[in-house]
Amino acid sequence: MAIELYWGSGSPFAWRVMLTLEVKGLAYESKLLEFSKGEHKTPAYLELNPRGKVPTLKHGDFVIYESIAIMAYLDRKYPEPWLFGTTPEAAGLIWRTISECESYLVSAGDKIIRPVFFGKGLEKVDEIQQAAQSVRQELHSIDARLAQARWLAGEQISAADIAVFPAIQLLLRAAAKEAAQPFDLGVMPLPQTYPNIARWTRQIEALPGYQRTYPPHWK
Amino acid sequence: MAIELYWGSGSPFAWRVMLTLEVKGLAYESKLLEFSKGEHKTPAYLELNPRGKVPTLKHGDFVIYESIAIMAYLDRKYPEPWLFGTTPEAAGLIWRTISECESYLVSAGDKIIRPVFFGKGLEKVDEIQQAAQSVRQELHSIDARLAQARWLAGEQISAADIAVFPAIQLLLRAAAKEAAQPFDLGVMPLPQTYPNIARWTRQIEALPGYQRTYPPHWK
Repeated sequence: MAIELYWGSGSPFAWRVMLTLEVKGLAYESKLLEFSKGEHKTPAYLELNPRGKVPTLKHGDFVIYESIAIMAYLDRKYPEPWLFGTTPEAAGLIWRTISECESYLVSAGDKIIRPVFFGKGLEKVDEIQQAAQSVRQELHSIDARLAQARWLAGEQISAADIAVFPAIQLLLRAAAKEAAQPFDLGVMPLPQTYPNIARWTRQIEALPGYQRTYPPHWK
Repeated sequence: MAIELYWGSGSPFAWRVMLTLEVKGLAYESKLLEFSKGEHKTPAYLELNPRGKVPTLKHGDFVIYESIAIMAYLDRKYPEPWLFGTTPEAAGLIWRTISECESYLVSAGDKIIRPVFFGKGLEKVDEIQQAAQSVRQELHSIDARLAQARWLAGEQISAADIAVFPAIQLLLRAAAKEAAQPFDLGVMPLPQTYPNIARWTRQIEALPGYQRTYPPHWK
């Protein structure tokens, strides 16, 4: 039963699932959707995912979307290696990290990424600076955790690392854009600002199959 | 080893954990924090939860916060009854529902709840109307799912029901406030607008221990 993954280049949410598949050593059929051609809004795709978002995973007759849910499904279906913790305490910490990523890092990050990439709302300087302040706080706390342990939830890679990494990568990409320069976001260069995140980034980049997950249009 | 739960009256996130504890039949020590007295910002509490939010659960030496993470921890620690699914497919659907609740229902709901409860931003009429439109879409899709099955993920109560229910209750409470009347949010009365959500609400209200979870200052 083949795994089919519908994804789009540059989506941090799709990237999470690709990393999960690589870490678990699972082969999959890649279905790359071109956002610019509206391929995520066709009637056929909307039948799989009524929200018209990526990623969506199809596994035989079973269809699942929302990146974290796909990760949880894959972890239950193919538990080796476990990504959501082998003890209740580890599971709790991993889920806490994911919740914090979604509720604080991604939501503050959005307020920077959207204006910088799409040019809309760049005049709301206070809002962007405030979001940058929240982002720096989150990155600071992630960096402090990575000073204590090799990965976010200890000595093994977990779903926490896989969920957080693409969100940070997208933020860094936004911060490097010309439109972001007037805001002095204070997140780069990474080795100086967040040295532990920089070291952890290299660990993820060294994962087997990492290159296959890297957004093609970022190359 | 006692379970201690730090919570605040009216927090939908704390309510989730209280419902989880009741459904699992777990006794706990209630630590009610008074927001108005700043009890969630004391140094002692910030040591448990540096974000100064509720809920936080302390179980012996183990401290965990973020509502969904606490639920996942309790489910691994006390698996009977399983709230996150007995099959990978069920787990995937439950996590999808929780992700959708957080990303779409809670975030749109916030744009209504905050102005209505705190009076700040009530002049942003377009924003509130747009949020109400998103909320109605989410409620519509939840209602449609509940027309197909007794609970959100099938014939048994799951973490999906427990995560979504308090978020909807808070929205309904906001919609009933005088400050919400000019906006015609279009969500009430529930039995007419979303009959399946109304039936499901009665099922949750009939759970043993439900009354102990109900926000005291709402009574």
